[in-house]
Amino acid sequence: MNLSIIIIGDEILLGRVTDTNSGLIARTFTPLGWNIKRIRTVGDNGVDIASAINESLAESELVITTGGLGPTRDDITKSVMMDIFGGSLVHNAEVAANVEAVFARRQLKMNELTASQAMVPSSAKIIENLVGTAPIMVFERQGRMLVAMPGVPAETRGMLPSVAKVIAEHFGSQELTPRQEFTVTGIIESALAERLSRFEDSMPKGFKLAYLPSAKRILLRLEGTPGASTELFEDQCRKLVEALGEYMSAQGDVPTAAIVLERLRKNKLTLATAESCTGGNIAHLLTLVPGSSDVFNGGVVSYANEVKTNILGVDSQTLATEGAVSEATVLKMLSGAKAACRAQCAVATSGIAGPGGAVPGKPVGTVWIGASTPQGTDVRLWQFGGDRQAVIDRASATAFDMLLRLL
Amino acid sequence: MNLSIIIIGDEILLGRVTDTNSGLIARTFTPLGWNIKRIRTVGDNGVDIASAINESLAESELVITTGGLGPTRDDITKSVMMDIFGGSLVHNAEVAANVEAVFARRQLKMNELTASQAMVPSSAKIIENLVGTAPIMVFERQGRMLVAMPGVPAETRGMLPSVAKVIAEHFGSQELTPRQEFTVTGIIESALAERLSRFEDSMPKGFKLAYLPSAKRILLRLEGTPGASTELFEDQCRKLVEALGEYMSAQGDVPTAAIVLERLRKNKLTLATAESCTGGNIAHLLTLVPGSSDVFNGGVVSYANEVKTNILGVDSQTLATEGAVSEATVLKMLSGAKAACRAQCAVATSGIAGPGGAVPGKPVGTVWIGASTPQGTDVRLWQFGGDRQAVIDRASATAFDMLLRLL
Repeated sequence: MNLSIIIIGDEILLGRVTDTNSGLIARTFTPLGWNIKRIRTVGDNGVDIASAINESLAESELVITTGGLGPTRDDITKSVMMDIFGGSLVHNAEVAANVEAVFARRQLKMNELTASQAMVPSSAKIIENLVGTAPIMVFERQGRMLVAMPGVPAETRGMLPSVAKVIAEHFGSQELTPRQEFTVTGIIESALAERLSRFEDSMPKGFKLAYLPSAKRILLRLEGTPGASTELFEDQCRKLVEALGEYMSAQGDVPTAAIVLERLRKNKLTLATAESCTGGNIAHLLTLVPGSSDVFNGGVVSYANEVKTNILGVDSQTLATEGAVSEATVLKMLSGAKAACRAQCAVATSGIAGPGGAVPGKPVGTVWIGASTPQGTDVRLWQFGGDRQAVIDRASATAFDMLLRLL
Repeated sequence: MNLSIIIIGDEILLGRVTDTNSGLIARTFTPLGWNIKRIRTVGDNGVDIASAINESLAESELVITTGGLGPTRDDITKSVMMDIFGGSLVHNAEVAANVEAVFARRQLKMNELTASQAMVPSSAKIIENLVGTAPIMVFERQGRMLVAMPGVPAETRGMLPSVAKVIAEHFGSQELTPRQEFTVTGIIESALAERLSRFEDSMPKGFKLAYLPSAKRILLRLEGTPGASTELFEDQCRKLVEALGEYMSAQGDVPTAAIVLERLRKNKLTLATAESCTGGNIAHLLTLVPGSSDVFNGGVVSYANEVKTNILGVDSQTLATEGAVSEATVLKMLSGAKAACRAQCAVATSGIAGPGGAVPGKPVGTVWIGASTPQGTDVRLWQFGGDRQAVIDRASATAFDMLLRLL
């Protein structure tokens, strides 16, 4: 069955806020057998919201919207829903109590606008929002279902399990397509496609292999025909893993930082970071992973040379003769980070993220990256393309890659 | 005139990669007078791509697509374009030379799949991709224009200025709607709406005020009627700024980290960070801003207590009696960070981001945050809702807010 997603809000349409809700919804419902049909993003505009809903209901059994439910005047989703599904605004005592409780918990003052969130269309079933104030509304028409969720990402994340339960009760469970994902790192898409071409040619009819690339890694998704035997599907998975060889990092969609942490945990090792041009991004990616604290001791963002000298023990002699962006500096950053954070492993970066800072022989994108474990130390010079953000992203991903190869 | 955006790719549709291209395109073209009509996200599926293109061409003078142009087998955008715009695949020598140059620069081996990127529809005008390998294709039909760009975000970012130039040459310049944005921090949406209700009631007919909220701040967009006099519009801007009072952080859409850095720069002050539960996110947000290195000296991610003691000088006595998540620890982190990084200002965080780590009296979301400048030091206890990511985001935003109020 099809699922269409609608993201409502000028802040998304105009690029002021990056939508992460649609991805979360897709990742939640794909494994349950739903086919994600399309994502539509529209502004806070009644006509556009209505046509997106009607188009979605025409193509999909299930439609989930997020956004457009805030307390301010430009949020008009409720009235559009009533145009489509009928009903009128009625006061809901449970929602009102919840709004009051949320405000009390956050020690905030309620006002009239907030109180208006307790007015809900009579045509909707309500799922109480345990994370925020805007209620979740469920509409039905001819067996099809529309669920309207608030746009705040933490509320979508928090409430999606309850929503999924209501949806499962309505639709029952679906025939699952055999599907397995593989996280691949250290190889570019075209080289990977060449490497896998024999495997792809030999796949049974109806099997599909999809490349889902990002700046950091490629996710491969192998799909069997619905109802394919477990043996046949698992046999294909084995063949794919064989063809991937050393580039296969993990079964499933696993962030590289989580793979690094798991590998360290298994080897009973701890990690420190010393970041110059990546500016804390590596530490940030590690600490986004729940439970990282038992492996990741901490790190230093050594933007100024004084910090490199004072905390990491890079001597001013090295900085003066070799420069901050050099093999010698990164080697000292590695040992300095291990010592300062009492860790057995470290990664370190020093480079020019741009747009300024380039010097003759060291253009923007020049980055020295080091990784060190009890097994050895590897320091290499890289030249990354793209802008500041791209250099930071690629240097971080490469640091993880280099560390993984030492583990 | 209308602009519709189409994001092509299973990796986006299935939530494996977060789309940032649509936002970039919207932010580029809105100030040029384009009305962003809709964003459609479809998978690597010919039928869905074709219908998204036809729907978009029906509603908009300009359509920009990104994605679906990679070298692997699941990318079929080119053949869909030829179904719609006609033409056949022809070899383009300039594109071929560019692909070779990119691979040489990156010291990668080319293969047949990569070489196939030089085959382009004869119905397209080509804009050379100076950042990557997939060429940018421009199609026209009855005065309407479709621009197909590659999906790699760094390539979209890098090539959008050239694309905008080609578009401007085709369409000419447009009548601009008077428009000004304001970054607002330190107040929730419903309270802000109440504060501004009198201003909103008094706006001239045709003026619009939009709330674009995110976890970190609210962006307000004031729009006049097209052709409204400059005096009238500027008068409304002044009234809005007056109504915003202390909550107005900057004119325009400015990341809070950039506001912090600019304020420090103006006061000739330097900054250090000491992050426990935010795990490097504050340093990351600061260093994403170009030019941050002249103000931000660096920081410490003190996940393990040993790091707090060893680098930041938090004594084990304090950690033992007060705990790592305490006012006393954060006070010492502030002074330790300033000393270790030789900075005059600091922010520090220590808390429980979850999902684990809660102890009696300190549930998930408990965060002590400190900010310190030569003018004073402020340390406060916060209780944030939401999951790990939300706690990290909110604690980081709050640290910036607290520092700003001291500057």
